[in-house]
Amino acid sequence: MKKILFAFGNGKADGNGAMKDELGGKGAGLAEMSKAGIPVPPGFTIVTSVCMDYYRNGKKTPKGLDAEQKKFLSGLEKMAGKKLGDSKDPLLVSVRSGAKVSMPGMMDTILNLGLNDQSVTGLAEKTRNERFAWDCYRRFIMMFSDVVFDVPKNEFEQLLHKRKEERGVKNDVDLSATDLKDLAGQFKTHFIGRAKRAFPQDVWEQLCLARDAVFRSWQNPRAIAYRKMNRIPDDMGTAVTVQAMVFGNSGDRSGTGVGFTRDPSTGENRFYGEFLINAQGEDVVAGVRTPEPISALKDKLPKAYEQLHTITKRLEKHYRDIQDFEFTVQDDVLYMLQTRSGKRTGHAAVRIAVEMVKEKLISREEALLRVDPLQLNQLLHPIFDPVKRKEHRLLAKGLNASPGAASGKAVFDAERAVAAAAKGERVLLVRAETCPDDIEGMAAAKGVLTATGGMTSHAAVVGRQMGKPSVVGCSAIRVDEHGAKFSVGGVTVAEGEFVSIDGSTGEVLLGDVPTRDSDILQVLGGHMKPAESPTFQYFETFMKWADGIRTLKVRANADIPRDAKAAMFLGAEGIGLCRTEHMFFAPERLPVVVRMIMATTEEERKVALRELLPFQREDFKGLFETMKGKPVTIRTLDPPLHEFLPKREDLMVAVAVGKDKELNEKLLGRVNELHEFNPMMGLRGCRLGIVFPEITAMQAEAIFEAALDVGGDIMPEIMIPLVGHVNELKNQKEIVVRVAEEVFKRRGRRCKYLVGTMIEVPRAALVADQIAEEAEFFSFGTNDLTQMTFGFSRDDAGKFLLPYVDKKILPVDPFVTIDPQGVGALVKGAVAKGRSVRPNLKVGICGEHGGDAESVIFCHGAGLDYVSCSPYRLPIARLAGAQAVLKERANGKPKKGKRK
Amino acid sequence: MKKILFAFGNGKADGNGAMKDELGGKGAGLAEMSKAGIPVPPGFTIVTSVCMDYYRNGKKTPKGLDAEQKKFLSGLEKMAGKKLGDSKDPLLVSVRSGAKVSMPGMMDTILNLGLNDQSVTGLAEKTRNERFAWDCYRRFIMMFSDVVFDVPKNEFEQLLHKRKEERGVKNDVDLSATDLKDLAGQFKTHFIGRAKRAFPQDVWEQLCLARDAVFRSWQNPRAIAYRKMNRIPDDMGTAVTVQAMVFGNSGDRSGTGVGFTRDPSTGENRFYGEFLINAQGEDVVAGVRTPEPISALKDKLPKAYEQLHTITKRLEKHYRDIQDFEFTVQDDVLYMLQTRSGKRTGHAAVRIAVEMVKEKLISREEALLRVDPLQLNQLLHPIFDPVKRKEHRLLAKGLNASPGAASGKAVFDAERAVAAAAKGERVLLVRAETCPDDIEGMAAAKGVLTATGGMTSHAAVVGRQMGKPSVVGCSAIRVDEHGAKFSVGGVTVAEGEFVSIDGSTGEVLLGDVPTRDSDILQVLGGHMKPAESPTFQYFETFMKWADGIRTLKVRANADIPRDAKAAMFLGAEGIGLCRTEHMFFAPERLPVVVRMIMATTEEERKVALRELLPFQREDFKGLFETMKGKPVTIRTLDPPLHEFLPKREDLMVAVAVGKDKELNEKLLGRVNELHEFNPMMGLRGCRLGIVFPEITAMQAEAIFEAALDVGGDIMPEIMIPLVGHVNELKNQKEIVVRVAEEVFKRRGRRCKYLVGTMIEVPRAALVADQIAEEAEFFSFGTNDLTQMTFGFSRDDAGKFLLPYVDKKILPVDPFVTIDPQGVGALVKGAVAKGRSVRPNLKVGICGEHGGDAESVIFCHGAGLDYVSCSPYRLPIARLAGAQAVLKERANGKPKKGKRK
Repeated sequence: MKKILFAFGNGKADGNGAMKDELGGKGAGLAEMSKAGIPVPPGFTIVTSVCMDYYRNGKKTPKGLDAEQKKFLSGLEKMAGKKLGDSKDPLLVSVRSGAKVSMPGMMDTILNLGLNDQSVTGLAEKTRNERFAWDCYRRFIMMFSDVVFDVPKNEFEQLLHKRKEERGVKNDVDLSATDLKDLAGQFKTHFIGRAKRAFPQDVWEQLCLARDAVFRSWQNPRAIAYRKMNRIPDDMGTAVTVQAMVFGNSGDRSGTGVGFTRDPSTGENRFYGEFLINAQGEDVVAGVRTPEPISALKDKLPKAYEQLHTITKRLEKHYRDIQDFEFTVQDDVLYMLQTRSGKRTGHAAVRIAVEMVKEKLISREEALLRVDPLQLNQLLHPIFDPVKRKEHRLLAKGLNASPGAASGKAVFDAERAVAAAAKGERVLLVRAETCPDDIEGMAAAKGVLTATGGMTSHAAVVGRQMGKPSVVGCSAIRVDEHGAKFSVGGVTVAEGEFVSIDGSTGEVLLGDVPTRDSDILQVLGGHMKPAESPTFQYFETFMKWADGIRTLKVRANADIPRDAKAAMFLGAEGIGLCRTEHMFFAPERLPVVVRMIMATTEEERKVALRELLPFQREDFKGLFETMKGKPVTIRTLDPPLHEFLPKREDLMVAVAVGKDKELNEKLLGRVNELHEFNPMMGLRGCRLGIVFPEITAMQAEAIFEAALDVGGDIMPEIMIPLVGHVNELKNQKEIVVRVAEEVFKRRGRRCKYLVGTMIEVPRAALVADQIAEEAEFFSFGTNDLTQMTFGFSRDDAGKFLLPYVDKKILPVDPFVTIDPQGVGALVKGAVAKGRSVRPNLKVGICGEHGGDAESVIFCHGAGLDYVSCSPYRLPIARLAGAQAVLKERANGKPKKGKRK
Repeated sequence: MKKILFAFGNGKADGNGAMKDELGGKGAGLAEMSKAGIPVPPGFTIVTSVCMDYYRNGKKTPKGLDAEQKKFLSGLEKMAGKKLGDSKDPLLVSVRSGAKVSMPGMMDTILNLGLNDQSVTGLAEKTRNERFAWDCYRRFIMMFSDVVFDVPKNEFEQLLHKRKEERGVKNDVDLSATDLKDLAGQFKTHFIGRAKRAFPQDVWEQLCLARDAVFRSWQNPRAIAYRKMNRIPDDMGTAVTVQAMVFGNSGDRSGTGVGFTRDPSTGENRFYGEFLINAQGEDVVAGVRTPEPISALKDKLPKAYEQLHTITKRLEKHYRDIQDFEFTVQDDVLYMLQTRSGKRTGHAAVRIAVEMVKEKLISREEALLRVDPLQLNQLLHPIFDPVKRKEHRLLAKGLNASPGAASGKAVFDAERAVAAAAKGERVLLVRAETCPDDIEGMAAAKGVLTATGGMTSHAAVVGRQMGKPSVVGCSAIRVDEHGAKFSVGGVTVAEGEFVSIDGSTGEVLLGDVPTRDSDILQVLGGHMKPAESPTFQYFETFMKWADGIRTLKVRANADIPRDAKAAMFLGAEGIGLCRTEHMFFAPERLPVVVRMIMATTEEERKVALRELLPFQREDFKGLFETMKGKPVTIRTLDPPLHEFLPKREDLMVAVAVGKDKELNEKLLGRVNELHEFNPMMGLRGCRLGIVFPEITAMQAEAIFEAALDVGGDIMPEIMIPLVGHVNELKNQKEIVVRVAEEVFKRRGRRCKYLVGTMIEVPRAALVADQIAEEAEFFSFGTNDLTQMTFGFSRDDAGKFLLPYVDKKILPVDPFVTIDPQGVGALVKGAVAKGRSVRPNLKVGICGEHGGDAESVIFCHGAGLDYVSCSPYRLPIARLAGAQAVLKERANGKPKKGKRK
């Protein structure tokens, strides 16, 4: 039979620290500590698979478990020298949950189990501390009732509170033994009323009920939600550890506490934690009494403090990572109850990783694997002052689309936002939803708040690209754009009133919560010197290590020099996507663009295009200059033309009510002509350039003129979007080549250039070999590829994607992390087909996935040359790229040189 | 060196009838006839590849051609016993075009070449017919100038006309030799004025110029358009045949004519044709004189008639197909100038195929390959009376979306169309575009006309499914739905005025052009007995032969018993797609559907669904009963819910102008919630059933209750739409299975059923192996699959698909014929993956492609079990299925048994 229980204690253990899968983090830690001679109360652990057996068995104890458990309980009783339920000297135990992955506070624990009406007196006599014994009993009744029988804890607390009022005392510790004995009685009576049975006096029954309750707590809503948020599988189950109690509440030479071997917030290498004298674990967590900082322990229990310090440093060395530990001191004797790798902020993660390398505790490679790439975001985004924030009312919570904190006056219109920002005001753009012509307003605002749209809505995508804090899909707020106000839960916020958003949490706060730029951005902006910021230096060191390992190149999606500058600063090796249409929305250009669209003849259109040409040329010059010879991929016009015109329904209403009738009727006429039922699959991408070849020609002309103006080694990469058939690419390439030759001839100089294509239509991936005959590079547009492979409209998918992820129909939003089986299969197939025709084909990705760590790892595995992402996601991509190499090595793949 | 010229004449020939690739149809026919001893004027043919060489050579004579041509000209002069340009007895030649595939009238021909100011007198003296000689010369100048120098023919005709006026005569034949001589002079003068050179007198120059002009006519706009329409490749080129002239215009014992060995319109086996005495070929074509029926030739030139009849019958036997021939009689001597397989109508094609089998001229298999499946449509659709039609004004031309002729009063609203039809009026539904709630109106109307939308727009698809004549995308007409009128070219048609449309040609005619049902539909409707209609009998015989060969099964897309009945009549072996949503639009149901959608709670929604249940059950019962145990595939609800509500922009306008404010505001609120930017990729298909499981449950309940009510062997096939991930199917299958068990338990009886899925999202095809774990059958929804694989919105693609096909970016509209490389690759891959998991997986197709012959042949090759198409497309599918087998056999694949 498979071994399902593992004992530990007395310097020995059946298991060890590597057995997290079986014993959970806590059980493995206890076994490891016990083996290492660290003082740990003895106990045993029931393995995680039993939890899943429990569920498979219809929430009943799996066969054979009770018998085994009896044996291990005897063993435990021998080690402890006491018997569970003994009426003279009872063994008390804790029954604790503990999964492979730490889920702090999500599952249940029961302390002081083994007490009943008899053993409580035995305990009192044995410890000569009646008050302590009854305190344990009333705690046990409360916790057991809550966890096993769902009798809410606060109902017991009310009785406790009442008694304290009657006694006129403030703290639990001021209650007498008699008070506590009375309370235990009251608690039992209350239990009978709610549970319709007597409080269990059989200690074996207590143990079995507690164990099963811990199994059940694996599936409580809190735990389920936590797993979903952290992408932890549902089928791991929790282990159950039964451990002899030690008592922090047995007097003033006792106490209990938690701590970290380093500061989990900043990463500073200092002993960090807090404790309570004469208390049990839950008192620290409950916050009823304010704990003291760990340094105070030195004075109060100096021997225990020294021992704790020595042991935890030893544990850190042993585990080679920051430790998060729990301890209890009973009558001056220290017991370790738990140790595990400590959770830490992004700032701390980087600092600890760098410092541990310097301390020679870990290797650089290990350091790189210690930081979750997503955490690097925290180093870039402005942060709220944590104290001041508490003074502000939380209005609602939306999706945390683009991290960072931002405050500003609510403005409900992009133009007004631009105007206000120009006057030096801080504004927050609030919209029902954003659209491309809000882009200048978004750029001008400190942050963006929308009522609709998902994690990949326009506001979210642009917000992340701009590094602009954004909360989207905040459905609780009702935005009245015309009335210039929004309301939520009885509060109405009018234009000009201050609102704050935290794009890292999705929170919307009333008023002006002070924020500040992160160090890294202050350095980028020139407001701080690198040497002034330790954070910046840790970050730089860390990222350089990543770059040293990484073989996948990283580029940025950037349309304008400002973005390109940020990209260079954050490590971009080129621009992977310059969206030329973003340049069309600037106020001095939009009227020309509208004229171009309203043109009824090719000639009229060409006149407008000639006016746009110098703008585009200057844009491209700026980019080329900023990128200093690094590759720049420029995509020809992509979006449907109606995006540049007013909305159809607005025009219909305007015409119906007779507003600016002539103008609006004319506009409506054109908008109607351009109207599409599914614009995402309509006249856009290269289809525009094929129907209106003069647009492609103008853009190509601007690119080549800019390249020659800047000179040097500029080699533009011109990218044709939305190609599904090689003939589309051929058609557009012919225009580009023809225009190139015209410009070269006119200028008497040439430059090198590449013409390639987006692979973003499923068909393009399927016939990538044919397309590679013409394309000099591929760039996977995985946003569109995901849309069309799933048939999920990005802008509309919120309605079913949330239920889908909830119902586990999809493991994860495929717009966030690439779908390896569908979209990923197309990507891999296209790379193979493309390179079968053109072995040195350059292949990259420029969808949102380029800034998602898991997707970057996928891209590395798929053999891509580079990923391109928003500038502010570059650190994620750089680290994920390094991790991909390290994971590949761990899986036995040989080292290989950097790709060219 | 490759042989590029081929001589024929005097019972011999270098080439033969099989060499159409090289000699073109005409050249091969002449060679074959010459070899067979049929009287053919001698000549030689320049092969088609020389035409393409001419283009490759920058429209210059390829090297070596002139030298070879000189040799063959000498050979011809020997056979004819005359020399080109001889001043005493000149040889005259015709220079004719002739591609591999017949392109009647599209390219150029020059007759009477070899005449100049000298030879014309020689001809006059030799023939002792001065009038004839000058007639030939003036004809030659006119034709040569037009074809070689682009001097328009009608400019010469004006001179001719003027001379006739001056002479006070009506017909050309009434002009004297002097008149014609004068005219020749005038023509030459006119030529000098326009061409800025003298009329070529060098006969060798004449010949070379004429030859090159024929090469050039391969690329004239007429020919290009014809090839596009008939999908003829552009790189075949035309052959040039130089042939000694014979003269139908040499007197009253001479004449010229064209004919068919059978009636090309009805297929009747009778000698058919027309001729003119004393005329040249172009006179017949030009329609200046009215030709006489061929039977009259028997009286006028009995010897020639007999000889012609014998020869053409011999040719028909020789070629084993109806022959389209040209002949000339010169002084009682018959010459054959051309023979080729005759073009014929659908009616004729079927009758000729059947009768030729009965005459043992061809085998059944050959007969099946002789009919273009698309032609079978002509047998089903109502037809305009061909004479009466000419009395009506042609208003405009749109896309010929659904064939057949229809006339009716224009009605601009579906409800009014239903009302008028209920009163027994014939109506034609005219809309800017149709949407699903127009469906009852479409059913009630005789035909549908829309201003927008392509060949696969809603109107087109539904029109074809209903077998309803439809002209769509008729952009010339301006539809004013509110004003209930449309206007085009100065004509305004108000509601109630008669309009006629021909869905086979796309023509829109003013007024009420009489039509009649085809025989087949009269039999289907019970208005004619099978025995009364020979057409029906030929059709039945032919289709039965097809069914005997075919291995691919055919099913129909049918939603209601009426369609199912038509499907059974037209050979359906089951229903491949019942769209349940079509049932929701009936007037008594729509309000309930709207209530279901407006429900704000699951409970409210369930109440509405319970009301819909009996309707759906009755619908399904009707289908099961009609199909008599044949398989019926029912798809659960598919379209986005907003399709059942009023349009968003209409509601916005109504609210803005304050119309029915409260109701419209409420509706608008819900419509706004349901609004999607790209509904095709939004909340529809199984996503609806997952978000609102109660809808799937209701539909499943209705299906199982109906199946048990009807009893017998009914085995419903329940099809889940828009699945992209196996978990979606699992989710919906669980509901279906649960409901099935509930119904079976309640009724105390069970029935067999299958649960399968549409494969219409690219991802589904990519992970078809995973999906096949759950799916008991696949049905390819190639409409959506094409949309998403290309990223082409069906409803919007018109804007670029037409330019795409024009610019040859795509060879053909992929919504009409399946794209084998992209969509087809997904289909083939999915079949292989699906069957790898479930070897006996039933696989079909239910997109529009199921009724397209080329696509059906693809499906056969891809190993599908069945195709499902609109009932009226079943004959196409049946024949194409048979042709697929025959083509496979021709390619050497072994015969195989029918698939189960």
